[in-house]
Amino acid sequence: MTIFDFRVRPPYKGFMDTILYQPESGPVKLFTDRIGLAYPESARLKSMDMMFQEMDDAGIGKGLLVGRESGVYGSVSNADLAELVGEHPDRFVAAASIDTSDRRACIAQIDKALDDGLIAVNFEPGNAAIPLYTDDRRLYPIYAYCEDKGVPVLIQSGGLAGPDCTYTAPHLIEHVCTDFPTLKVVAVHGGWPWVSEIIHVAWRRPNLYLSPDVYLCGQTGMDEYVRAANGTLSDRFLFATTYPLAGFAQYQQFIDALPLDASAKERFFYQNAEEVLGIKVA
Amino acid sequence: MTIFDFRVRPPYKGFMDTILYQPESGPVKLFTDRIGLAYPESARLKSMDMMFQEMDDAGIGKGLLVGRESGVYGSVSNADLAELVGEHPDRFVAAASIDTSDRRACIAQIDKALDDGLIAVNFEPGNAAIPLYTDDRRLYPIYAYCEDKGVPVLIQSGGLAGPDCTYTAPHLIEHVCTDFPTLKVVAVHGGWPWVSEIIHVAWRRPNLYLSPDVYLCGQTGMDEYVRAANGTLSDRFLFATTYPLAGFAQYQQFIDALPLDASAKERFFYQNAEEVLGIKVA
Amino acid sequence: MTIFDFRVRPPYKGFMDTILYQPESGPVKLFTDRIGLAYPESARLKSMDMMFQEMDDAGIGKGLLVGRESGVYGSVSNADLAELVGEHPDRFVAAASIDTSDRRACIAQIDKALDDGLIAVNFEPGNAAIPLYTDDRRLYPIYAYCEDKGVPVLIQSGGLAGPDCTYTAPHLIEHVCTDFPTLKVVAVHGGWPWVSEIIHVAWRRPNLYLSPDVYLCGQTGMDEYVRAANGTLSDRFLFATTYPLAGFAQYQQFIDALPLDASAKERFFYQNAEEVLGIKVA
Repeated sequence: MTIFDFRVRPPYKGFMDTILYQPESGPVKLFTDRIGLAYPESARLKSMDMMFQEMDDAGIGKGLLVGRESGVYGSVSNADLAELVGEHPDRFVAAASIDTSDRRACIAQIDKALDDGLIAVNFEPGNAAIPLYTDDRRLYPIYAYCEDKGVPVLIQSGGLAGPDCTYTAPHLIEHVCTDFPTLKVVAVHGGWPWVSEIIHVAWRRPNLYLSPDVYLCGQTGMDEYVRAANGTLSDRFLFATTYPLAGFAQYQQFIDALPLDASAKERFFYQNAEEVLGIKVA
Repeated sequence: MTIFDFRVRPPYKGFMDTILYQPESGPVKLFTDRIGLAYPESARLKSMDMMFQEMDDAGIGKGLLVGRESGVYGSVSNADLAELVGEHPDRFVAAASIDTSDRRACIAQIDKALDDGLIAVNFEPGNAAIPLYTDDRRLYPIYAYCEDKGVPVLIQSGGLAGPDCTYTAPHLIEHVCTDFPTLKVVAVHGGWPWVSEIIHVAWRRPNLYLSPDVYLCGQTGMDEYVRAANGTLSDRFLFATTYPLAGFAQYQQFIDALPLDASAKERFFYQNAEEVLGIKVA
Repeated sequence: MTIFDFRVRPPYKGFMDTILYQPESGPVKLFTDRIGLAYPESARLKSMDMMFQEMDDAGIGKGLLVGRESGVYGSVSNADLAELVGEHPDRFVAAASIDTSDRRACIAQIDKALDDGLIAVNFEPGNAAIPLYTDDRRLYPIYAYCEDKGVPVLIQSGGLAGPDCTYTAPHLIEHVCTDFPTLKVVAVHGGWPWVSEIIHVAWRRPNLYLSPDVYLCGQTGMDEYVRAANGTLSDRFLFATTYPLAGFAQYQQFIDALPLDASAKERFFYQNAEEVLGIKVA
């Protein structure tokens, strides 16, 4: 069984301009100092070769590069993502980062990214230069476009997804799932800390997938995530390290030790990702 | 010990026009396919005799028929409920369904239902043709009328209780409990998924009862419901199968296996229902 | 190891005019009758000597007197607090109660209290004569003043902290922590029942401390508080009996029996309090 990692940001070009490659920054230290995740050696040394080795060691065959166009956490261009996918098509697929401030330009940006081989779109509304709520009307033409094109979307909707915890409130992403019922929606950071509520929303909305990533690592609510991943929502959870916030081996070992049954684990590790993205993980 | 079931919708007349008797419909499949509840044989065959046999087998002596007047899930008339209670007064009491869109007509509807022997009123504000929040001002004259008449009310306030999860937010039912302090209020579906919050509200508001029904069956937060039912809120939890969403035996066995102490179980199985409804369960 | 109690209201002068010394009142019975806390003998007899004995027996060396200026639960003057600290400087420090309805008078009240030796300010916005939300703009000049003076604040932000559960919503205190980043903020009652959400907020906001006090005693969410106190938030939890709602020994034994590791317990028992208040617990 090969594992698919739904959130990877390698030490490559634009990624290194984002806050993720500032291990001493406050937001990164929330994960390292406080949750106790080890900042990966490959990220510290900014070595792609070492990163591939770490993926191999953890049994992670392939990953989704997730771009970022953020007023708060820094940006990485879709061109960089397309280039990296082109260099390593066996290791990566990619989700485009977008600037939603002008809807026509944004749709052109999406078209370009799809032409260049990217296969999903990443929204981080609360971390735009002017923060938006996930269900802001100004995003709706863009969601509509993605739904009509059959492109899955990632929406940052947990953790540090905006200026305060109202930006992760569960009804926001529920509105998107309800209003665009054939759009596949991934709740990046799994709606944390609204664990009970997001589990309800995903139970009710068949197009919602949860990627709680590092918020599964000893954080509040993790037992409920595990219960849902074993039961009512086994077809909705996604494995995502958030590299470089967590190292591949560290995260993989953590998930592997959870009381997930074999079939739930298989879905969590790659099958659900295959369904969301419409790909085959080798 | 005989068990009282706080939510029964038999295969009888108008009930069969509601979505509950469409086992292949999306909302029903959320419970069967996803939670894993077995759609009862008696419901599939629409056999009252078989249903009584299933009640007997599960030790359920009596149940509350809960009507429905819903723009979303279908309706069953109070006349049907009164008729069924008249035929089986040893097995059923009933809660009236109401159309709240005209307050004067609604109060007349309540009066008629009470005259016909119904003993409670069932509100489903979020599933009306025009959805309302539980604390909508337009419902307040009707709550006031019920409080003044000493009639307990059921309010759908969990699960699929409206267009999205804001309709189950815990402050909505708290407002009703606070503003009508002598009104007995049952939170149908137990405020799920806002488990921690609804437990707080019920702790603070002595007139609130919780009926988490099928959301106790392996769902998120169930351990907290059980902790409260064993402890601070032992006098507030109600046994409710939601038949035909869950079968009597399946649900009874599930609840019986929970780590509830003997006294909590007795309260849960029938004593609390006696208190809410002012009846004696044989 | 001596324990510091972050919330003590002794049987002394003005305290005895508050609802806390009406053991038969509804709010107090929520804790005694329902949670099962034993109303302390020293409080019933209103004996300071007996109270000191009970503190000694529980290993509680020192405590924070928390005043109250409430339209709902009664008031105790800062003069009474200053006097009691003056009589027993080895046993008490104190947090001033304030009337926030006039910002200039309130700041004068804070200045007077600080001059008299009080070392923190206690806000109970939701229980003022006219209830306010924690992030109400009218409180902002007062928070700003406390931040500029380096005075830590307590904000009642859990349990019965206002007319309904919207007054304890987690974004309210997050706004204060975010907008006054160098202000030390204690969430009195630990943001209960929004347990998962307040743990998230405290993880993100380094100036937020949690004092879940009696809501740790067998209440919903307590396992998540304990997980956080052992892990990501070991430097943020405070020991607080809420005497006379809980007795010293009863509460201390309860906390001592929790699965907290030795270092987490030491922080919980007194080190975190030292940090918040800038004092040395003997």
